[in-house]
Amino acid sequence: MELVSLCKNAKAAKYELNRLDTEKKNAALKKAAEYIKAAAAEIIEANKTDLENADKKGMSPALKDRLKLDEKRIDGICEGLLQVAELEDPVGEVLDEFERPNGLKIKKVRVPLGVVGIIYESRPNVTADAFALTFKAGNVVILKGGSDAINSNIAITKVLRKALSDSGISEDAISLIESTDRETTKAFMQMKDYVDVLIPRGSAGLIRSVVENSKIPVIETGAGNCHIFIDETADAEMATKIIINAKTQRLGVCNTCESLVVHEKALDRVMKKVAEALKEKNVDIRADEEARPVLDCNAATEEDFATEYLDLIISVKTVKNIDEAIEHINKYSTHHSEAIITGDYANAEKFLKEIDSACVYVNASTRFTDGFEFGFGAEIGISTQMLHARGPMGLRELTSYKYRISGNGQVRG
Amino acid sequence: MELVSLCKNAKAAKYELNRLDTEKKNAALKKAAEYIKAAAAEIIEANKTDLENADKKGMSPALKDRLKLDEKRIDGICEGLLQVAELEDPVGEVLDEFERPNGLKIKKVRVPLGVVGIIYESRPNVTADAFALTFKAGNVVILKGGSDAINSNIAITKVLRKALSDSGISEDAISLIESTDRETTKAFMQMKDYVDVLIPRGSAGLIRSVVENSKIPVIETGAGNCHIFIDETADAEMATKIIINAKTQRLGVCNTCESLVVHEKALDRVMKKVAEALKEKNVDIRADEEARPVLDCNAATEEDFATEYLDLIISVKTVKNIDEAIEHINKYSTHHSEAIITGDYANAEKFLKEIDSACVYVNASTRFTDGFEFGFGAEIGISTQMLHARGPMGLRELTSYKYRISGNGQVRG
Repeated sequence: MELVSLCKNAKAAKYELNRLDTEKKNAALKKAAEYIKAAAAEIIEANKTDLENADKKGMSPALKDRLKLDEKRIDGICEGLLQVAELEDPVGEVLDEFERPNGLKIKKVRVPLGVVGIIYESRPNVTADAFALTFKAGNVVILKGGSDAINSNIAITKVLRKALSDSGISEDAISLIESTDRETTKAFMQMKDYVDVLIPRGSAGLIRSVVENSKIPVIETGAGNCHIFIDETADAEMATKIIINAKTQRLGVCNTCESLVVHEKALDRVMKKVAEALKEKNVDIRADEEARPVLDCNAATEEDFATEYLDLIISVKTVKNIDEAIEHINKYSTHHSEAIITGDYANAEKFLKEIDSACVYVNASTRFTDGFEFGFGAEIGISTQMLHARGPMGLRELTSYKYRISGNGQVRG
Repeated sequence: MELVSLCKNAKAAKYELNRLDTEKKNAALKKAAEYIKAAAAEIIEANKTDLENADKKGMSPALKDRLKLDEKRIDGICEGLLQVAELEDPVGEVLDEFERPNGLKIKKVRVPLGVVGIIYESRPNVTADAFALTFKAGNVVILKGGSDAINSNIAITKVLRKALSDSGISEDAISLIESTDRETTKAFMQMKDYVDVLIPRGSAGLIRSVVENSKIPVIETGAGNCHIFIDETADAEMATKIIINAKTQRLGVCNTCESLVVHEKALDRVMKKVAEALKEKNVDIRADEEARPVLDCNAATEEDFATEYLDLIISVKTVKNIDEAIEHINKYSTHHSEAIITGDYANAEKFLKEIDSACVYVNASTRFTDGFEFGFGAEIGISTQMLHARGPMGLRELTSYKYRISGNGQVRG
């Protein structure tokens, strides 16, 4: 379908979605799970075409794995839909309530955002996940997936639309932009008259391009150059355990630790042990001049400190005190997640207060920055910007609010 | 100063501002009021130059009045600074607090936005007002005022910077872009690396230009094509009182009523009286075909329904029922403020729920959409977008948040 018509149809469904009650939304999510399960064979068949095209392009095994759908992953999609049905509906929540001296009663109430656009890359399960969250929060969603997964995305969207219409809900609550060329993406980012918010999910390059080109308000997600500061009083065993978890538990995700900042007095006592453990996990350590003699490792350049490796590499910067650590981190971080390992209460508080990141940890792994780990049930992404939402974005972060004001004839004097 | 250097200096002051305690901020605001009062003669002198330039350009008396500063208006600026000193500091407020099963303690805490850019037009008092609010919320502000008020703005900014530095605070907490050409404005909107949020204040044209050209996240403020719906059961006297207030109390502001929507059964009983009262106030009524025979007035075109007049003009649309009224309003409104006059409880609730505007009123004037009227103490503008903040933006709306997470060695499984 032509892009403008698709966007118009989405906007036309906006107020219907806005008004849907919780029960009807949950029933539709359950039906969607049922239909996806029943259509598993068709979806896997469509996915095969995507995988064949990937082979022709010579896609890497890692990327092919992200693209692949099998029975187990389809089950995962269905579980995701059912889980969102269980989550509390944020729409209608009263956020604040007060009465003015003139008798006006003011209620601040959560409402859906409206039409949410999501631009994402290869993983086809995002199609159903993103639909479930935006839909439960009362929003219409327009999806623009990557070309690699286009056949899978078309198959999944078709099933979701059928589940909606069989639930008595406009199927335009979800639509997929089927053209995957760059021109369409650029044109989509201009659809300010129809789309209320745009959320890019994917590589740093994709996010940058959306931020730079969109006329629609954007929620920036993703990039995580996450730091852990080993303070003078850090417990060596705790530091090792946390850093191994934060660096090596999963490499390709945004809350993985990419850089260590070490108090000079903790180099010998703590950092040395941490480095041994990292080397055992085959992590390439790139350290500054002060740390290298102690750690016996490669040299870090200025560029290393600014790099989100998403790989078995970590940079190390030595500092004289916590102020220098905070300054370094605020300069190089992407304001995603940072941690301090310390035994010093005042330093813990200082770090929590002065580090300018969405999530700031004391004595815990940065890997906890995640909607599930925070108890939000699910997430659409991790916001690294200041406006609207910061950190894990669950259902509540997919809403706005309005003021409902009740009077009995008040006029302004 | 060169634009990039100015933005860099502003960013360099960001963390100092972020950490300022309430007492120090309030003392600086009081000093600023004192200094402005003491510098009244200099500021008025600078303002004279602006007024002379305005004469040369043949500026209208109404615009010249907005530009003018005298002793009384300088006192108003000082009062504004002192009022903001009295307001509660939003920074550090705990918005949420919970513990996860693994023992992680998560606190969601208000933090400043960072560096806030404000682009505005003629009124020089905005310079001090905008500084006071952004500063109290812990932010650095970069102001880009209009060329008409440039000499006044330079004079006011100079005094505010002196008050800051005499309070032991970086004077870069406020800076003014002194070049007023369009190229500078365009370049400023690209300063994403230094500025966290951009808030345009002024005409619809200015706001549109910022929304379309900014690479910095924008909070859209302003335009208000506000509606009042006269329901079948509206009280005629109340309707008249509210509509006269909403239309005529102040013409040039965004919360003024610009369009009436009337239930066909209320045309004779209510709308006729309302029209008489409007005519007494010299309001030009432009109505649709159904209403014209009853009201004896001019004809409304499609364009009228979409126009924010900011003048003694009002449009009238007749509808068969509340659903038609809601559909019309959601189509033509700018999502600012709308009201229903009704005696019917179910219709009041329906209107509150289904109208998609920042502020929705029952039996009250739309003129109440205002930071002071809501009890926020002051406002930086009225947001008409869905992201971040909607409606009157006070101190809290000039903040973001972060998560502070305290652990004792937790790692992700």
